[in-house]
Amino acid sequence: MVGEIRFLAGGTVTDPKGFTAGATYAGLKTYSEDKLDLGMLISDMPGPFAGMFTTSTVRSPSVSLTEERVSGGKARALVVISGIANACVGEQGLADAKEITAETARYLGFQPEEVLIGSTGIIGVELPVALITAGISRITLSNDGGHDLARAILTTDSKSKEGSASFDVGSQTVTIGGIAKGSGMIHPDMATMLCYLTTDAEIGAAYLQRALKQAVDSTFNMLSIDGDSSTNDTVLICANGSAGAGIIDEGSPEGNLFEQALNQMCVYLAKEIARDGEGATKLIEVTVEGATDTTAARMAAKTVASSVLVKCAIHGADPNWGRIIAALGRSGAEVEEGKIALYVNDVCIMEGGRPIPFHRDGVVSLMQGPEVAIRVNLNLGERQATAWGCDLSEEYVTFNSAYTT
Amino acid sequence: MVGEIRFLAGGTVTDPKGFTAGATYAGLKTYSEDKLDLGMLISDMPGPFAGMFTTSTVRSPSVSLTEERVSGGKARALVVISGIANACVGEQGLADAKEITAETARYLGFQPEEVLIGSTGIIGVELPVALITAGISRITLSNDGGHDLARAILTTDSKSKEGSASFDVGSQTVTIGGIAKGSGMIHPDMATMLCYLTTDAEIGAAYLQRALKQAVDSTFNMLSIDGDSSTNDTVLICANGSAGAGIIDEGSPEGNLFEQALNQMCVYLAKEIARDGEGATKLIEVTVEGATDTTAARMAAKTVASSVLVKCAIHGADPNWGRIIAALGRSGAEVEEGKIALYVNDVCIMEGGRPIPFHRDGVVSLMQGPEVAIRVNLNLGERQATAWGCDLSEEYVTFNSAYTT
Repeated sequence: MVGEIRFLAGGTVTDPKGFTAGATYAGLKTYSEDKLDLGMLISDMPGPFAGMFTTSTVRSPSVSLTEERVSGGKARALVVISGIANACVGEQGLADAKEITAETARYLGFQPEEVLIGSTGIIGVELPVALITAGISRITLSNDGGHDLARAILTTDSKSKEGSASFDVGSQTVTIGGIAKGSGMIHPDMATMLCYLTTDAEIGAAYLQRALKQAVDSTFNMLSIDGDSSTNDTVLICANGSAGAGIIDEGSPEGNLFEQALNQMCVYLAKEIARDGEGATKLIEVTVEGATDTTAARMAAKTVASSVLVKCAIHGADPNWGRIIAALGRSGAEVEEGKIALYVNDVCIMEGGRPIPFHRDGVVSLMQGPEVAIRVNLNLGERQATAWGCDLSEEYVTFNSAYTT
Repeated sequence: MVGEIRFLAGGTVTDPKGFTAGATYAGLKTYSEDKLDLGMLISDMPGPFAGMFTTSTVRSPSVSLTEERVSGGKARALVVISGIANACVGEQGLADAKEITAETARYLGFQPEEVLIGSTGIIGVELPVALITAGISRITLSNDGGHDLARAILTTDSKSKEGSASFDVGSQTVTIGGIAKGSGMIHPDMATMLCYLTTDAEIGAAYLQRALKQAVDSTFNMLSIDGDSSTNDTVLICANGSAGAGIIDEGSPEGNLFEQALNQMCVYLAKEIARDGEGATKLIEVTVEGATDTTAARMAAKTVASSVLVKCAIHGADPNWGRIIAALGRSGAEVEEGKIALYVNDVCIMEGGRPIPFHRDGVVSLMQGPEVAIRVNLNLGERQATAWGCDLSEEYVTFNSAYTT
């Protein structure tokens, strides 16, 4: 019998059975008490990994090495560095990534090709490999080490982003855990974003990759903080089968439940990233309904959520439907002006392509809350999509005018 | 004999022979002494118009009516309204545009199909047609009325943008005049931008359209203020032949000179618009050289110039090459990291894809000036392109959080 999904906002990547993690301070970030910048995640049993990687043509060798080793099918451990991205450093970058994963493998008693690597932070600076290899041997792995790992991967984030989702298969419980970091430079196609997912479900590598792609396409790839992209974006998932619930096949009721749980996990983390965008004060959720096809719905939702003018208006709690309409118009989606209906936090402010009288003070006060939901009905078809973003504040500009490469 | 191009920053659309213009205050903008919001431009002799129009699917009926009448080939006058865009007002918008052009035609003794219309400002509000028709009859046309018209088309711009370019053909002088407005919501594809050009050259309609498209593609369509687009963007040119310099043919020395002068005019106005972007403190010029093809060069230059993170860095005078590289990487252009060279105001800060030591304080102090030039050499081919933008300031956010639809 297949059960309901139970979501735990405080969960983490070591909630699924058979995963341990840990982190330490290696000296890459500026020191402060309780700061962590080097972490590790291990699966007790080998299990397939699947991954999604940055589409930028300028990419960190950490990403290239990890992608190659995910394809190799032997991975079971991950080392993550935050503070320095290991990007734009020439050939030294690949040599460093290999050395750090080799050292991690040695420490764990694994083969180098079993170790993946993630890195995030400033670019153009070589990794201090000696500090990192010294740090590796100080990491203590534990069954609740996911929380430390979640902190260790952060850069300009203000807080950890982690959760877990469980469901029952017969008498066994299957769990998916996830952690993520985001902040600046997030845009459809997963810019400067790391997300690590674990599950004790038993799932074949090909199905795992398809399920991950589907979840990422409708969550992290529908997320925009500032329209920029990075050299290091990675989403990884490992399915180690430790739940003992039997293999989960595509198309089965358990498979559908797994996909739902994975999607829910990714929606949660994507929203947490948007909420914590640099200088953000509000989460923006844009849903476009009534589109002729899903691609159009996605383009329209993403264009509205990433419009700088829409983001400024929402920052000021201004129900500025004109900017939303302008974004729809240039989105490339099929739009008939005379059919558009528009809702802000469920209050209709436009119908048939024209603004309707609404209680402005009421809508402004709704928009002063921490979440603003824009819903557009194009009234042309049956398809829909949702995108997430955050408002654009003076603080974002101040922060990003001062940040040093 | 074909002469040199003489450019006059203080020139305007009534500098070419045979054009008159004028403007008045009709009551659309909030009143202040010397404010203008309704203007007119007339060619003494009929001559072909050419136009480029917004690509947004949500577009003002002012744009649709003007596009139709440009194609009709009979246009010789233009009426422009600023303060209200005549967009998102349902069927009334087209009726109003027809009524206003009819009234203008009646006042001038023309046929309605000889009159074009432009409008810019807030959307979703119907035009006060009675105020406008009353205003039309107060407009006095004159040979130096272009300066008033240049002021009348402004919205949130802080100053007029106008110029003229002249060259000699035999003993005759041919002149191109231009005015523009910009400010917020400018992005490749000419968002919320009006530009009106005049010339006393004699040029066939088809060649005029090709020359205009070529100039707009490499100037206004390479301009980004905030990545947004509008419902009303329009660039128009009228060639009335009044210079008496004979017909200028495509491919002739005079044709090449005309194209150069037109391009120079459009570069000037595009840069003036970028410099005057909402909250802008600096003009940014991004040149990408060494690309495999022009499309790649254009994509790369536009992506860098419109990156929110690059704009913030330049606002803070931070030579943050990492953000430039990140923008190149996601631009879609072919890029080989190890070949990239990067210059800020002609100081090389990156070579072979890696940062090189540079006098940081010197570069920061160069970047504190009013113009920042980013030059990238991809070292892959022979093609190049230039894009323009402005920095992103706290003032932009403050301004656009408070603006009302």
